Amino acid sequence: MTFSVTILGSSSALPTSKRFPSAHVLNVHERLFLIDCGEGTQIQLRKFKLPMNRINHIFLTHSHGDHVLGIFGLISTYNLLGRKTDLHVYGPADFEEILFKNIEYFTDQISFKVIYHVVDPFRVEQIYSDKHVVVSTLPLRHRVPAVGYLFREAPKPMNIRKELIAKYNLSLSEIVNIKNGSDYVTPMGEVIPNSQFTYIANLPRSYAYCSDTLYSERLVGLLKNIDLLYHESTFLHADLRLAKLTGHSTAQQAATVALKANVGKLILGHFSSRYTDEDKFLKEAQAIFPQTEIVYDGQKFTVEQKSAC
Amino acid sequence: MTFSVTILGSSSALPTSKRFPSAHVLNVHERLFLIDCGEGTQIQLRKFKLPMNRINHIFLTHSHGDHVLGIFGLISTYNLLGRKTDLHVYGPADFEEILFKNIEYFTDQISFKVIYHVVDPFRVEQIYSDKHVVVSTLPLRHRVPAVGYLFREAPKPMNIRKELIAKYNLSLSEIVNIKNGSDYVTPMGEVIPNSQFTYIANLPRSYAYCSDTLYSERLVGLLKNIDLLYHESTFLHADLRLAKLTGHSTAQQAATVALKANVGKLILGHFSSRYTDEDKFLKEAQAIFPQTEIVYDGQKFTVEQKSAC
Repeated sequence: MTFSVTILGSSSALPTSKRFPSAHVLNVHERLFLIDCGEGTQIQLRKFKLPMNRINHIFLTHSHGDHVLGIFGLISTYNLLGRKTDLHVYGPADFEEILFKNIEYFTDQISFKVIYHVVDPFRVEQIYSDKHVVVSTLPLRHRVPAVGYLFREAPKPMNIRKELIAKYNLSLSEIVNIKNGSDYVTPMGEVIPNSQFTYIANLPRSYAYCSDTLYSERLVGLLKNIDLLYHESTFLHADLRLAKLTGHSTAQQAATVALKANVGKLILGHFSSRYTDEDKFLKEAQAIFPQTEIVYDGQKFTVEQKSAC
Repeated sequence: MTFSVTILGSSSALPTSKRFPSAHVLNVHERLFLIDCGEGTQIQLRKFKLPMNRINHIFLTHSHGDHVLGIFGLISTYNLLGRKTDLHVYGPADFEEILFKNIEYFTDQISFKVIYHVVDPFRVEQIYSDKHVVVSTLPLRHRVPAVGYLFREAPKPMNIRKELIAKYNLSLSEIVNIKNGSDYVTPMGEVIPNSQFTYIANLPRSYAYCSDTLYSERLVGLLKNIDLLYHESTFLHADLRLAKLTGHSTAQQAATVALKANVGKLILGHFSSRYTDEDKFLKEAQAIFPQTEIVYDGQKFTVEQKSAC
């Protein structure tokens, strides 16, 4: 079952010749979730052969142009393609009005519903779930209200040890009861605890997207032990003053969050266009958290299944 | 002196993995004029190394998203870069309100003036001139009001034949008078007509951008003898019915316009994404007008100076 992230755009506010503005696509079991939607997102979706019709949910972190300006064109394109499926957009309260003004202007007789969900940038809350994934907000600290998003695979039903089905000659209803957490009582009245029958096959995988934000100790607590963390890294630590002034993080700070939260892997992006040598971000971060990579547009990060046994 | 066009985007409404939405840049003597501004224009400007700070004039043909959605990001970027110079935008009346709504939303304390010039989509009029270029509108026939633009080098002052300056021992004021069109009267009272003294060194070069439009006989008259014509070619002629239905042209129609107008070269773009083999556009057009090319993003067309002698 797939759990992977493709980077569509990784520039900071000013795109470069190599980096489009912010956008990621998370593939969870072949459903695509779009996170941020910078200018050119629809172009990148086509370039990297991601089927845009599988996107039914877009999560916007904040209302700065480099994170949202691709959504008008994407929605316009969906309309030209005759989309029928509802499109759910999650984002800050103030973006709703301008979004719908643009939709009204740029689409004739829209063929599908755009449903806007206002997210509270100050609270941690679960805002979406289906049978495969649960999405929660991660309050960020930026110049304007901003949220990150944490995607975690939904807990799966417990697996039952097959050899015990045979040993105890379990009926279908007994198997269902055990999977749902009941202990088993033998015909002789012996109680065998549920834990002897069941196990979790795979641990839920997780990915968090944190951009744009100052260094945040609160974030550390919310990201504990996640598998893959994208954290913005607009500046090098030598420019910490600028980072603070503009509401951004340095590579060192991103790595510190990753280290303290004990994440599996850190990926960095949103580099200021002032820097020509992006390897400096990597070196700065790896000195603190070795499991760091810097992203490039089109790159795909797969989180492999991890057995719980 | 430069007179060249670079293609930034050449898709029709749906961008493809190879073609961005519509945008061209005309370079006249190192001043850049942007024509249309589809999504991703600022990214293409960087990619093709065109200095965006040399653009002071943007000409929009109509208000469909694939021709204008890049302007919000471009203006936002200019603001981040601290632009001071006025930016003149020419376009349809109905686009003004949504443009300024988006500018207001996406730019904090804008550092430069955006001056919007409403163009009349039904009249042929000169809307801009400087010492190098004159820009006129070309009424198009689309589903919404639309104009193309004709760029023509400004007429240069006449050159004076140097050998005659010596022969008649002309003074500076006599030279100026002759350059301004006066005949010369010798000290003996002989009148020598101006045409014997003067000549045009180079013919003014011209480029026209016509997208989106149905076939237009009126356009033929307005494009007579221009050097370089970009004409949309959304459909092949086998799909003429679709072209008519959607307010577009076929390759055959674009070539017919070029042939009847006796242009120097025809370049085609705005191909519908339904076609996989774009060579068919070229073949269809070249059967009527051999001096045709189909454009690709990043391609540059230079119009060479033509001696009038």
